[in-house]
Amino acid sequence: MIITIIGIGLIGGSLAITLKENGFAQRIIGVDVSQDNLDKAIRRRLIDEEMGLEEGISAADIVVLATPVDVMLRLLPQILDRISSQQTVIDVGSTKERLLEAVKGHPARERYVATHPMAGTEHSGPEAAIPNLFDHKCTVLIDVGDSAPDAVEMAERLYRSIPMRIVQLDCLSHDVHTAYVSHISHISSFALALTVLAKEKDESHIFELASGGFDSTVRLAKSSPDMWVPIFRQNRDNVLDVLDEHIQQLARFRSLLIKKDFDTFYQLIEEANQISRILKK
Amino acid sequence: MIITIIGIGLIGGSLAITLKENGFAQRIIGVDVSQDNLDKAIRRRLIDEEMGLEEGISAADIVVLATPVDVMLRLLPQILDRISSQQTVIDVGSTKERLLEAVKGHPARERYVATHPMAGTEHSGPEAAIPNLFDHKCTVLIDVGDSAPDAVEMAERLYRSIPMRIVQLDCLSHDVHTAYVSHISHISSFALALTVLAKEKDESHIFELASGGFDSTVRLAKSSPDMWVPIFRQNRDNVLDVLDEHIQQLARFRSLLIKKDFDTFYQLIEEANQISRILKK
Repeated sequence: MIITIIGIGLIGGSLAITLKENGFAQRIIGVDVSQDNLDKAIRRRLIDEEMGLEEGISAADIVVLATPVDVMLRLLPQILDRISSQQTVIDVGSTKERLLEAVKGHPARERYVATHPMAGTEHSGPEAAIPNLFDHKCTVLIDVGDSAPDAVEMAERLYRSIPMRIVQLDCLSHDVHTAYVSHISHISSFALALTVLAKEKDESHIFELASGGFDSTVRLAKSSPDMWVPIFRQNRDNVLDVLDEHIQQLARFRSLLIKKDFDTFYQLIEEANQISRILKK
Repeated sequence: MIITIIGIGLIGGSLAITLKENGFAQRIIGVDVSQDNLDKAIRRRLIDEEMGLEEGISAADIVVLATPVDVMLRLLPQILDRISSQQTVIDVGSTKERLLEAVKGHPARERYVATHPMAGTEHSGPEAAIPNLFDHKCTVLIDVGDSAPDAVEMAERLYRSIPMRIVQLDCLSHDVHTAYVSHISHISSFALALTVLAKEKDESHIFELASGGFDSTVRLAKSSPDMWVPIFRQNRDNVLDVLDEHIQQLARFRSLLIKKDFDTFYQLIEEANQISRILKK
């Protein structure tokens, strides 16, 4: 299988190593607007060779679109313009409604499978790529009824080879769910970082004390705005809903602290502990 | 050195293994209200033997108080009632103002050193104890001017043996800082968990999608209310201040989403990225 990956960053680069190491791909071609990214990807042996966009598309059995989601809106129609009925295109973006609108009615729409492997780290770029990023995580396939069965089959084979579990969702559900399980965590983390950084202007000891719980909740605040702003832009309405709910939950804790109602506070923590049912999986 | 640890949970148990393994302690005595905890601690070889409170205190060179902070308020004066001028008492709690008030003017006050090793996990109990929990983390010594120099020296030797870095703070600063770098992270995580769990009532797929950023921000939501409610009670005023600031930061993001001002959103994320300066240390 020849795979062309467009956008050799954390996700594209990690897929590249993984699919080469497990034998699913015989050859990985890298396409990227940044020559620096391509040089790093070749030096790290993430890709076998670099190509331009058109050349990369025509050489591939599977084209993987792994750019920030704003770039996907522009590139996906161009890719489908050039794709044959023997080829499959997948994207790995974190929001789908806008992207699927952008290719609705495209003559080659059925060669494209919308996918979202649910994995990542707070780092970005080819230097952040790691081979076991996706192992045993979950990939969502979205609106598969709009893709050709053989294209869906190809996407499933790719993800199963890693191996990843596969779940199917419709586009609107996907965007709501990712707002809950991924996008809000990032906003929360950015806001926590800003809260602490504002304090730190006055007092330097905050440096020394940062450990334990702090790193883990604030880790995501290192995430790149180039990746995340387009996601928040495209998933704005869902993110706003979830953010409103989250602020309300925090306001509940605030009100309990003001009233010194620590019995109810205790009960809320016990309820929150139920999250371990989800995290264990 | 004979060390008696009162409260053999995550922190007490982890200190026990660590100080035994590195040779600082010749013998570790465990005291706990829960016979089940003591049985587990002996089975896991966290402690060499169990004793009652009074017996445990008199046998020790160093008494380590590692219970939830509400229990500390009650136990610390009782411990100081029984301590000789050859012994040292330290606590490992996450809030200090109330505790230091509780022993202010006690005749044996100078045998006690208030300390806070900044480490932990979301788990609790002796089964959660791990030997490398504290390695190269930071311990705060609080209001050391109120302790005898030889007692401070003993506390420092204990923490340096692990090894941990040592920082000194006054009691009020300590409680403000922990509100920022630890307590608010926990409330944020509890609130995120509740936000997601409320959604999950309707839709079961949220289970499948939980991965990546989600586990890391919501991990702390598994933390025990028995440990945390007393902390929030004792540090209520500081936690309330920081929570207000955090809600304001989230409200800024909310307002930018409403106005679709993604340029400022981008700048805020870039500011938040500065947290990596702190997390690297």
